[in-house]
Amino acid sequence: MNPVLGVCYYPEHWPEDLWERDAARMSEVGIRYVRIGEFAWSRLEPTPDNLQLDWMIRAVDVLGRHGLKVIIGTPTATPPRWMIDKHPDMLPVDANGHVKGFGSRRHYDFSHLGYRDEAARITRILADALGDHPALGGWQTDNEYGCHGTTYSYSDAARLGFQHWLEEKYGSVETLNKAWGNAFWSMDYNRFDQIGLPNLLVCEPNPIHALDFRRYSSDQVAAFNKVQYDILKARMPDLPVIHNFMSRYAEFDHFDLAKSIDVASWDSYPIGHLAVSDEPDEIKRLYMRQGDPDNAAFHHDLYRSVGHGRWWIMEQQPGPVNWAQFNPDPLPGMARAWAWEAFAHGAEVVSYFRWRQAPFGQEQMHSGLLRPDSEPAPGYHAAAQVSAELQKANFGGDMARGRVAVIYDYQSEWAWEIEQQARGFSHGGHVRAIYSAFRKHGVDIDVLPSTTPSFEGYDIVAIPALLAWTVALRDAVNTFEGHLLVGPRTGSKTENFSIPKGLGPDLPQNLLDAKVTRVDTIPPGLAVTVKGGGASQLWREKVETRAKVVMEDSEDVPVLIAQGKLFYMTSSGDRALVQRVVDYLIAEANLPTLNLPAGVRSRVRGDFRVYVNYGSSPATLNAAADEAGYVVGGPEMEPAGVTVARLATAD
Amino acid sequence: MNPVLGVCYYPEHWPEDLWERDAARMSEVGIRYVRIGEFAWSRLEPTPDNLQLDWMIRAVDVLGRHGLKVIIGTPTATPPRWMIDKHPDMLPVDANGHVKGFGSRRHYDFSHLGYRDEAARITRILADALGDHPALGGWQTDNEYGCHGTTYSYSDAARLGFQHWLEEKYGSVETLNKAWGNAFWSMDYNRFDQIGLPNLLVCEPNPIHALDFRRYSSDQVAAFNKVQYDILKARMPDLPVIHNFMSRYAEFDHFDLAKSIDVASWDSYPIGHLAVSDEPDEIKRLYMRQGDPDNAAFHHDLYRSVGHGRWWIMEQQPGPVNWAQFNPDPLPGMARAWAWEAFAHGAEVVSYFRWRQAPFGQEQMHSGLLRPDSEPAPGYHAAAQVSAELQKANFGGDMARGRVAVIYDYQSEWAWEIEQQARGFSHGGHVRAIYSAFRKHGVDIDVLPSTTPSFEGYDIVAIPALLAWTVALRDAVNTFEGHLLVGPRTGSKTENFSIPKGLGPDLPQNLLDAKVTRVDTIPPGLAVTVKGGGASQLWREKVETRAKVVMEDSEDVPVLIAQGKLFYMTSSGDRALVQRVVDYLIAEANLPTLNLPAGVRSRVRGDFRVYVNYGSSPATLNAAADEAGYVVGGPEMEPAGVTVARLATAD
Amino acid sequence: MNPVLGVCYYPEHWPEDLWERDAARMSEVGIRYVRIGEFAWSRLEPTPDNLQLDWMIRAVDVLGRHGLKVIIGTPTATPPRWMIDKHPDMLPVDANGHVKGFGSRRHYDFSHLGYRDEAARITRILADALGDHPALGGWQTDNEYGCHGTTYSYSDAARLGFQHWLEEKYGSVETLNKAWGNAFWSMDYNRFDQIGLPNLLVCEPNPIHALDFRRYSSDQVAAFNKVQYDILKARMPDLPVIHNFMSRYAEFDHFDLAKSIDVASWDSYPIGHLAVSDEPDEIKRLYMRQGDPDNAAFHHDLYRSVGHGRWWIMEQQPGPVNWAQFNPDPLPGMARAWAWEAFAHGAEVVSYFRWRQAPFGQEQMHSGLLRPDSEPAPGYHAAAQVSAELQKANFGGDMARGRVAVIYDYQSEWAWEIEQQARGFSHGGHVRAIYSAFRKHGVDIDVLPSTTPSFEGYDIVAIPALLAWTVALRDAVNTFEGHLLVGPRTGSKTENFSIPKGLGPDLPQNLLDAKVTRVDTIPPGLAVTVKGGGASQLWREKVETRAKVVMEDSEDVPVLIAQGKLFYMTSSGDRALVQRVVDYLIAEANLPTLNLPAGVRSRVRGDFRVYVNYGSSPATLNAAADEAGYVVGGPEMEPAGVTVARLATAD
Ligand SMILES: [Zn+2]
Ligand SMILES: [Zn+2]
Ligand SMILES: [Zn+2]
Repeated sequence: MNPVLGVCYYPEHWPEDLWERDAARMSEVGIRYVRIGEFAWSRLEPTPDNLQLDWMIRAVDVLGRHGLKVIIGTPTATPPRWMIDKHPDMLPVDANGHVKGFGSRRHYDFSHLGYRDEAARITRILADALGDHPALGGWQTDNEYGCHGTTYSYSDAARLGFQHWLEEKYGSVETLNKAWGNAFWSMDYNRFDQIGLPNLLVCEPNPIHALDFRRYSSDQVAAFNKVQYDILKARMPDLPVIHNFMSRYAEFDHFDLAKSIDVASWDSYPIGHLAVSDEPDEIKRLYMRQGDPDNAAFHHDLYRSVGHGRWWIMEQQPGPVNWAQFNPDPLPGMARAWAWEAFAHGAEVVSYFRWRQAPFGQEQMHSGLLRPDSEPAPGYHAAAQVSAELQKANFGGDMARGRVAVIYDYQSEWAWEIEQQARGFSHGGHVRAIYSAFRKHGVDIDVLPSTTPSFEGYDIVAIPALLAWTVALRDAVNTFEGHLLVGPRTGSKTENFSIPKGLGPDLPQNLLDAKVTRVDTIPPGLAVTVKGGGASQLWREKVETRAKVVMEDSEDVPVLIAQGKLFYMTSSGDRALVQRVVDYLIAEANLPTLNLPAGVRSRVRGDFRVYVNYGSSPATLNAAADEAGYVVGGPEMEPAGVTVARLATAD
Repeated sequence: MNPVLGVCYYPEHWPEDLWERDAARMSEVGIRYVRIGEFAWSRLEPTPDNLQLDWMIRAVDVLGRHGLKVIIGTPTATPPRWMIDKHPDMLPVDANGHVKGFGSRRHYDFSHLGYRDEAARITRILADALGDHPALGGWQTDNEYGCHGTTYSYSDAARLGFQHWLEEKYGSVETLNKAWGNAFWSMDYNRFDQIGLPNLLVCEPNPIHALDFRRYSSDQVAAFNKVQYDILKARMPDLPVIHNFMSRYAEFDHFDLAKSIDVASWDSYPIGHLAVSDEPDEIKRLYMRQGDPDNAAFHHDLYRSVGHGRWWIMEQQPGPVNWAQFNPDPLPGMARAWAWEAFAHGAEVVSYFRWRQAPFGQEQMHSGLLRPDSEPAPGYHAAAQVSAELQKANFGGDMARGRVAVIYDYQSEWAWEIEQQARGFSHGGHVRAIYSAFRKHGVDIDVLPSTTPSFEGYDIVAIPALLAWTVALRDAVNTFEGHLLVGPRTGSKTENFSIPKGLGPDLPQNLLDAKVTRVDTIPPGLAVTVKGGGASQLWREKVETRAKVVMEDSEDVPVLIAQGKLFYMTSSGDRALVQRVVDYLIAEANLPTLNLPAGVRSRVRGDFRVYVNYGSSPATLNAAADEAGYVVGGPEMEPAGVTVARLATAD
Repeated sequence: MNPVLGVCYYPEHWPEDLWERDAARMSEVGIRYVRIGEFAWSRLEPTPDNLQLDWMIRAVDVLGRHGLKVIIGTPTATPPRWMIDKHPDMLPVDANGHVKGFGSRRHYDFSHLGYRDEAARITRILADALGDHPALGGWQTDNEYGCHGTTYSYSDAARLGFQHWLEEKYGSVETLNKAWGNAFWSMDYNRFDQIGLPNLLVCEPNPIHALDFRRYSSDQVAAFNKVQYDILKARMPDLPVIHNFMSRYAEFDHFDLAKSIDVASWDSYPIGHLAVSDEPDEIKRLYMRQGDPDNAAFHHDLYRSVGHGRWWIMEQQPGPVNWAQFNPDPLPGMARAWAWEAFAHGAEVVSYFRWRQAPFGQEQMHSGLLRPDSEPAPGYHAAAQVSAELQKANFGGDMARGRVAVIYDYQSEWAWEIEQQARGFSHGGHVRAIYSAFRKHGVDIDVLPSTTPSFEGYDIVAIPALLAWTVALRDAVNTFEGHLLVGPRTGSKTENFSIPKGLGPDLPQNLLDAKVTRVDTIPPGLAVTVKGGGASQLWREKVETRAKVVMEDSEDVPVLIAQGKLFYMTSSGDRALVQRVVDYLIAEANLPTLNLPAGVRSRVRGDFRVYVNYGSSPATLNAAADEAGYVVGGPEMEPAGVTVARLATAD
């Protein structure tokens, strides 16, 4: 099936007599999927056991009559107020020990088993009531797990759950004491029930204590989701179960949770995400009305991997949002360009959030495809244009394996937050810097988990800043015949968050004869320049090695070393250094590239190559040898412009 | 009566044998009013029901013998320690749920009815004991309501009070659910007793939830004050009851509270207020030793309006204070100039805080008219000079209606704090920017509440950033024949904090045919320049309109539109843009202005025009056509200089 | 005995079969002292009363066999987890009222008497088991009192203890009310049990309330230490009892605690301390890999004074640490240079922290002399070099009295934190600025407490920013015949934190006829230049005086005044002004100085002068007239270089 558009809709916010007209207009725009229901619990069950499902069935009827497929969200992200009367201890507790109350959303604790049962109950009720509806297109579980920092709760329920989880993992408290190195600072435990959560301590916790709590918390999110998934799959095995992830919330392992979803989706708000990101101010100014040109793309590739190859955008920013400190209007055309970028990366559906701007509640300043007065907002016209273009170009096709892959690992994300050592060093930042450096050359990239057992088929694989080797990844590295780029900190810890006996990067000597003997962390303003260009900043390792030194800094410290096709980068570089290293790898691996104008990016899907101009100025494409003309736009690109080329191989 | 000086005095801080000499010296300086008592409860009632009023009566006797009139402050801002034993739950609770203890001041919860009774009791006792005293000049209720963030308390008392207030307001929970839009995020309630306070939530509360809590809290402050007012008026109908407001604490509606006062007063600390303000660093440096040239003036005009035309300065900064991060010594002469500015705006009394610098307690670094060793501080000489000048010039007279009015609305202040959308956009900031731009032209301005039913008599009225139209204000606008300047966000919400059906600014088409269809909020560093000068920053609206476009920005977005004499400004401009818009309005309305040197400001009272030079350099006045010579100073003004001209109309 | 090296060692972290080899290598490097045990409680007493002391005795045996002397740390900084089951209320409470839990270190409340008994019990057990061991070289009590902000606890135990302490101090609540000035803001108490801790108030507490709480808390630390000291001295009167202070934690009075230690020691981490200091960014960049050239030296002189002339470095930074935001690798050679600087200031032992980098726990990124894989880290070679040099030079000798002394007073440190008035003004900052200005001239300085009864023997004494005169210090000043530099704020308060009757600096007229009549505090960016160079910033006093004006600022405000040999500085100057004032004093006092190259510092011990080059460039020494050649290095100094000259007087 070729990709299509969707939209998020809240029939419970509007008079029923508006529904028909809304559905008709959705259909006119070319929308094919409508997500509903994910915040509607108080209208589905206004008081305990008083179920009011009729209105939802009628809403699905109306939408179905207009040829729309409906995705129903389980409403578990917003339990109604009476649920708190029933389970007063289901509320989450923050790191300061303060209970978070009712009155916004996500007011539940993943560790609370009573609420997990309630979530199962309402899921079962919805499955029973709507599972057979002909307009049903699938399910969404809950909404944006982890949003607003809700992965972690410091409640009694979490403490008891964590103790039990530790007992399951370690078997005996002696084993735990040894694995955690509790001889340090007299932290030995006598019994599992003595182990507290790693908050409100005098100073920082043992890093493995913190990491195990993050692992535990991640497991609870997965377990919470699995309960719903199992119910929905048992009832309707053929309908996809989806969750809508948020890109910024990496507190739980999305690959792990994805064992209980069929299709991944994510909620893409490029402008807000840039505003709250760690990107330098210069980038924030340059792309204030476009969003970062690589960040959404990275997440498209990530969630394609999370979703076992299948993924959607469940919420696509249509105009200004309401939740950043400043919420700029996107450049005219961006609502179209963002959709095209997603489709280029393999999205099956891009669903705009939301159909009509709500005049009340927390998000009343969040735009929609319609204004609050039901007149079309700019996003409405963008959606109509995308629909028409998709159809005219007959756009679609499968995603080929990229020639480059980057490992993204949630546990490493947590680990380097726990043990900063250099403020601002982050696993994700390092991954995205390498991703960007490849993408600027028009290279298509896959994002892989740390459980990947083989790199066969890739020309280059990057492992940017991995906490600890997995058995799978050791195998993948051992058997890989392409070029491997290993980044700083990689392999510098065991899975128990301690330094490996042979020191990092902990690779066999035949692959890389090198030991990291000392770490030098320095503020960005005191970066050490690298001979030939670029600089090391934040993280800088000193290695004892017999490998070849490819690059070194002004103090003769090796920055890039090589043994055969394995390259190890010892520092976190500025953008210039990362680009130099990636360019070097591309040259070594003889990888084909495109010559893209500044601000322009590209991605191949099936027989198409999609170009998007993120710059604020027009750009002119250099025609690539493998292209046979344009099906959308042409070589002259306006700001926010989209050009789709047909590949010659297609003929 | 011509205006006079006052001073704040704490007899309980000093040996009784000092009182006589103090009173004599006050009288010598020309002081006529002395405020006492507002923190003396522990000395008036050292243990429960053990009343010790004699010393206060003796103090009033001494002051009276020297011709001084005494204002007695009810001591309710500082209940004694034993009161907490009696009412342990009267302590306020902060937004994190922490109880705030005894040991400073304002340690009570406005929602606590038991303490409200205690406040009534001590008020009654003081009224009985001192109501007939011939030296009594009036009463002050409590002290600086709202100071230190005390308007809001998140206690059980507040929660129960809020629930009751909501029940009174909405009648049924169904009505509340509908008014609040609780379908959004499943926030419906089944009973009023389920509604919590809008603190400690997972993410932000529903804006109407937050706004109603602010309304409730404001009502409690007014109710607390009314209890004291009613007692004092019943006993002594002819003596004025005053409260001393603080300019920076807008958390309760001062207009609303003022229904229970006869005279408004405020505590003016120009240097500290500038230090803690949002003014740009450049202004803070320029006026570090003077205070902002327009901020105190704005508050003078505001409190004249709050006080039904009658107002005082109850506390006037006499020298360095103690509570900002840096506490600079004022420019020599400022303690005199500030008093003159206040008198120019209609102050009946300017009362310096305090007579003698305290050597102990929290404010020991706060200067007084006397040093701690009883020698004169610079403020002493300033006070003596002001007294002499007032008398010599026979200064006084009523305040004529200004030709310009600006609407200042407390609910809008709260609303735009609740829903920022652009960090740094504030109602008050916008109001003061417009006020300043008029004042730089020597224009006299009135500040009006949003309940003003008619603008008759004004040439220009500005409604800078109003949350929602009131019935009164709609009438005023409808019947106004002058020039009206309506600012961004005005009318963009209903009173229930939702977007009006017809979108903002929600004016009848015959007055302004315009709809705000989109809002673009941007950091100050990325301001969009306006053709002809100035720039839009923070808040920028896109309108659908048939009105005339007077100014537009570099992207052709209308910035100032006009329909007849109604002007709508779509953005929050930088100072240059606001000045251009105001200049344009002044020209359109043909308003007479003065040509003031930089740093100099003026105000007319009765037959006098008072000039103050806030600059750090001397300035030369351009004589105005309506002046007939000077009664204080002359055309050459030193820094901190004061010149008072006599108007020709006086003859 | 000549000074020697030591090292910190954790036998409980390593397999027992490593101990022998470790001890042998320590001995080879020239190490003579080994500190062990201070975090080992959970291994000494794994469950209540189950004592396992054998391993520690075996460890001491092994170390002793290799000629090493052992310092045993009492493990009271890290009570084991079961202790919390026994005394749940022993956990400390932070200023927000949150209990701090188990899982890091220092998780106890100094006010908890039950835990004080447990600390006595384990101390007694260790004394009994190891007191006779021939390898025992002394004791360390606890570890780094006050680290992580643990001097203050806001628990019930602290509240009750504080009430009792106040009762002891003041006798009656009336006396306290008067001493505290509680008439201010109605803060009078009726009974001691009504007095709370000065946290969680509506606004700031009465400064004397805050200061008395700090005094009380300081007393608890001293009392906690004394319990251990008394036990250890009773058992082994000849062995030194030491505590290892941290330079940055001045929340308790180190002079006061030192009544219960024989030798002071401190933990010196020059790079981390610079990173977390208030030094300007320029200094932080310049000395990022060296540490501030004067800060460690200041603390060496301070702790020599605290330790009654005897002091050690118990923990010396050997390489990168783990606890600052950035943790740079020291300049090659700094681990040697830091040790030499300490020895130059009289250290008996410099003990590196730690022998081998731990692969687990909170400090796994903290380097040691060995890497985690037991190979030598750079610190290992540095230690070996220092050992060899000490021996070859036969370095040692007593510390002569310096010609300059500076008063450092803990209570003043607290006072100016409590009453800032100018953000960034600190007692310690002022002391160190003056110390630095002398040291740049090669002047040797002593640091004295405010209880010093005589300045006899000094040429110049500085009292930089003293809260209140003590009887002793008044005597010292009265009888002093040298030059005295008194800094701003000095004597501006009584011991009850109120302004003295005669105003500051509160000196007799025959010594200094001057009164501070007004204080002007201003941001650094608005400093007022001083005629002749430098500027006043932050704190600026206006004085009424008949003394001679030596320096004045551009507004003719006196900056340095003199009456005979007593100089009073009225402002806190920038570095240039402080240097000018110190240079002026040096010239007046005719004090001999050295001409040191930039970045180089010197210190005399016995017959040696030690030079250290803190600069990043080589430097050439100007030979001093009193030197008779070099025993380590020579006149050409590399970065991090050390040169030791032999004084001619030695012959
Ligand atoms: Zn979210
Ligand atoms: Zn809290
Ligand atoms: Zn106040």
